[in-house]
Parts: sequence; C-alpha cells; structure tokens
Amino acid sequence: MTKKIILDLDTGIDDALALAYALGSEELELIGVTGTYGNVLVETGVRNSLAILELFGRPDIPVFAGVPHASTKEGFEVLEISEFIHGKNGVGEAELPEPTAQVQDTSAVDFLIESVRTHGDDLIICPTGPSTTIAAAIEKDPSFAENAHIVMMAGGLTVPGNVSPVAEANVNQDPEATNTLFAKAQDVTMIGLDVTLQTLLTYEETKKWRELGTTGGNFLADATDYYIKAYDTTAPHLGGCGLHDPLAVGVAVDPSLVELFDTNLKVDLEGELRGRVIGDETRLNDKTKTAHVALGVDTERFLEEFMRRLTNLAAQTPQA
Amino acid sequence: MTKKIILDLDTGIDDALALAYALGSEELELIGVTGTYGNVLVETGVRNSLAILELFGRPDIPVFAGVPHASTKEGFEVLEISEFIHGKNGVGEAELPEPTAQVQDTSAVDFLIESVRTHGDDLIICPTGPSTTIAAAIEKDPSFAENAHIVMMAGGLTVPGNVSPVAEANVNQDPEATNTLFAKAQDVTMIGLDVTLQTLLTYEETKKWRELGTTGGNFLADATDYYIKAYDTTAPHLGGCGLHDPLAVGVAVDPSLVELFDTNLKVDLEGELRGRVIGDETRLNDKTKTAHVALGVDTERFLEEFMRRLTNLAAQTPQA
Repeated sequence: MTKKIILDLDTGIDDALALAYALGSEELELIGVTGTYGNVLVETGVRNSLAILELFGRPDIPVFAGVPHASTKEGFEVLEISEFIHGKNGVGEAELPEPTAQVQDTSAVDFLIESVRTHGDDLIICPTGPSTTIAAAIEKDPSFAENAHIVMMAGGLTVPGNVSPVAEANVNQDPEATNTLFAKAQDVTMIGLDVTLQTLLTYEETKKWRELGTTGGNFLADATDYYIKAYDTTAPHLGGCGLHDPLAVGVAVDPSLVELFDTNLKVDLEGELRGRVIGDETRLNDKTKTAHVALGVDTERFLEEFMRRLTNLAAQTPQA
Repeated sequence: MTKKIILDLDTGIDDALALAYALGSEELELIGVTGTYGNVLVETGVRNSLAILELFGRPDIPVFAGVPHASTKEGFEVLEISEFIHGKNGVGEAELPEPTAQVQDTSAVDFLIESVRTHGDDLIICPTGPSTTIAAAIEKDPSFAENAHIVMMAGGLTVPGNVSPVAEANVNQDPEATNTLFAKAQDVTMIGLDVTLQTLLTYEETKKWRELGTTGGNFLADATDYYIKAYDTTAPHLGGCGLHDPLAVGVAVDPSLVELFDTNLKVDLEGELRGRVIGDETRLNDKTKTAHVALGVDTERFLEEFMRRLTNLAAQTPQA
C-alpha cells in the first residue's frame, strides 16, 4: 500500500534531492508540495519545485505557497550562508528550465489542514525547512496538531548546531514555530543533524548521475556537486555533504532506517541558546512522548536506497 | 561473580545513597572510596564517607582524598545551592557519629591508577562528583584512560542542565576535567539528568526506612527527607528528588536498567555554553564510540532494586 505524503520544502539543493527521492519511491504518493522560505525565498522555492516536478515528468503534482517569513519578523532575506551553500537560484546554479505549471491559488496552510482532514492516518507531512507554515496550520486548526503525522528534517539533539553552536538552520529561522510544533503536534519524528551528518554523499556518487547523460542526471549532478563543494569549505571534517532532507523522506518511506528515541521536546527562545532543541524537562516524566528523535541511522542501507531511487528516476528523463 | 568497584564521591546526600546502594549489593565488592569536592569540600565528603561506612558496619573499606579543586581554579568553596540541597554537613544535617577510621595516606589519584593496573576489566570506577580527580589520573597515567571502565553520574545530553540551562552540577564544577575524560577515556557510561530525573524518590519511600527504627534507617530517612524538601523548592514539577548518584551504582550492578546511546562526547568550555555536554561533531562518524549515554531507564525496576537493597542494609544496623 502506498502512503500519501506532502513535502514542505524550501527548495534548496537537498530539498531537490528529497523531492527526487519521493518521486523515485513507489511506496509514496506525493499529493502536493508546499513551499516555505529558508534556503531561498518562498517564490524561488515554489519555482524550483514546479520546475523539478516538470523535469521528472510530474507537472500534475500541485505546488502551494506557504507563509513567507517568521511570525516574529517583518520579512525574510536569504542569509549569505544559505546562498553560499545552495547558490543564488537555490539549486547550485544548475540549469532548470522554466516550469509551465503554476502555483495553486489555495494557500499551503489550507491545503495542509484539508489534507489531514481528508486523509488522516494515511498521510505523512514531511517538512524540510523552517516550521512557519506548519505552525500556522497548527494555530489555525487544533485538529491538525492532533492528527498530523510529521516526519521533519530539523534540529539536532545530541550534536551542536550548524548555524550556531546550538541552532540548526531550519529551527534557527523560526524557533517559535518549531517550539509550537513540538508543544502541540502529537506525532513528530525529528530527523536532525544527529543522523543527517552521518549520511554523506561524495563526488563519487554524483559522477554516476552525470554518466547517465540525461537531463535529470545532469541536474542532480550539477546541483549536488555545488553543494558538496560548499561543504568542503563549511565542514571539511565530514568529507562529503549531509543528506539532510532526503533522509527525512527516506524515513517516511521506511522508518526502520533509523533508531528513534521517544521524548518530549522544546526549543529555547532566549539569548545565546535561541534555536536549541532540547528535552522539555516539564514533560520528562509524561507517559506520552510526542517526539521521536532519530539518533542512529543505517547509513549504508540509506545510501543504497538513495542512489537506487534517484538514479532510476534520473535515468527515465530525456537524454541531454 | 562479584565486580570490584571504586566510588568517587562528593558525599552529599545522593552520594550517601549511592554508597549505601553499593554496600547493599552482593554483586559488588567495594574496594575503596575516593573523595572529591562538589556538594561539599573534600574533607567533609571524606569524613561523611568514613562515617557512613562505619554506620553500615564496613569501617574496613579504605577512603582516599582526591584533588580539592578544579585545575583551572585556585580553590573551592561550596556553592550556596549545594548547601541548600545537601545541608551544611552534606547529609541534610542528619546525625552521623564521628568515624574512628582515618583517611588513607595514598592519594585518590594513585589509588585509582594502581587499582586499574591491578584489576583491569574486573573493576568499575563510579564517579558521582566533578571529574577533577579522574582527569588527574588520566593525565598522570595514559594507561588509565585506556583501561578504566567508568560509569559516572554527570551531565545531561537531551535535557537542560540543573545549575544553568546547559550545565549539570558535576560537569559545571570542572568542565575541562569532564572534557578530558570524554576525550581520552575509552569506556565511559554517562548516567545523566536524562535518566536520573526519571528516578524519583518521595516521602512515601523514606517513611519505610524510618519505620525500621534502626540507626541506618533513621540516617537514610533524615538525610533523604532534607533532599526531597530541597527539590520541592528547586524542581517542584518533579514531585520528588532525583536519584542521581544511586542510579550510576545501579547501572554498575546491572546495565540492563538503562538503554544506552553510543556516541562520542565533548564539553563546551566557552561563554554561556560552558559546561554543556554535547556530541563531538569531529568524531560523529568514527566507528569507535567511547561514550555510552543512558537515555532510557526502567524506573520501576530501579526503584524496587533501590528500596530493596537500602532497606535490607538499613535493617541490619542497630536499633536506634
């Protein structure tokens, strides 16, 4: 049986890989993509999602625009570090033809709420950017928090952050929103830096995509090579790029890829600790644990699945 | 087969309970107690350890004095919060007759080094205070770090600290020492706030000790009631006192009481994060994991074991 999924992306390079992972997974039925800001502006991310869906032959999948900035801020500008990692166009300056499909009129928030109402336990929501749009859905409809099954790339519980010693990039954009999510959502699987920095991709793998000689293969290779190059500068000790967002989709397909630690989480909001994900000490002894944090990952199996799915998908696109 | 154990205590109320747990465990042969500072001065802690050993009929177990303050500091004074929690005499103003036995001439550092050389894998070292003395042993003899098996109460990885939002009390006293321990010791089981705040004792349990009508029962009840009362003020959301140090001894007896997460750790040393225990990102993908962090605990079974062992032990002391 296939599972329905909605990806909430700030399409960015690893978001693009996550989207490709979903499209390459027969176990998933991607019923829509919602666009958040983060690696890029909402407009850029939505544009990239539409273009990638078209590149991989799925212009039928609807894309919805989410909330353009954190509720605590007046607006949003792409951080310098985000542009360094994802490029000006968000996909490492890789060429991506203009999409013909348009963004939907319905807002991402309404689409998310309506989808949870309609599909209930058959649906997974997979956010890979800031939690702003998800938090807006939670605030607008309490039944969303109660019923949504969320598998998100965000945070880090047992390792330092990647934009500060305490904060991971997605949480850092809107700590209040992620805190709302952890406080209210009843089923949140957190795929954070604890595991995503253990799933590394190198030029050796991207070479295989390039060798396909297809439009899809070239796009994946060009975008990812840019991303790996940025990692060579920002995290040279790793020896590759972290497959942050694709791992969240991987876990949506197959939860057995990770070992989960059940707990209750909060996000620190003040001072130097702003953006830190940490256990909520006031709910430490609650029997109910709403968060499931991935602390271990079967790196080898995930990389095999990742390469198999993306390579098959890219092989089906036209020769370049 | 019994396991040999050395307790490194800053005897303190929960240290006293840990010492009683060891004395009440047939599986353990307590070959010595080393005294560190923390809840109390080294002198006070050593005095308390000697007196408790005598109270429970074991004046034969030797006690050694450790390093009196962090290597980064000129001296040590008991913090106001420590005195509030453990009382001026370290055991909640409970009466504890003067011991007849004396502290050993050998230093704690030399005793620790010599014991690891002699007993190797048959020995567990169980520190429940600051890591200063253990770090001194590591610095003095590299084979100590290589061969020691350490089960320590310290830190917290997935929950906030208890003396600051990032720091647990033991690590806070000497972050450099704990960092040295995590960097160099090859087998460290960390029993931190993640689990010790899940093992709570209440007046209901201490009542059972008081009802024994023995000197040992009265001492345990008096000291622990003081401790629970302090927790009513410092952490009212818990509804009891955390059994920090006894849980470390409990795990030394029976590791199956906890679920361990294997990783490599470091301690932040700078600024507001000073004292935070966190994964060492530079060793995240190392196959070797030197730290084993307890994240889950069988609370019910531990509390049963704890009460059974301490109540039996206290029952054997003279009527008061």
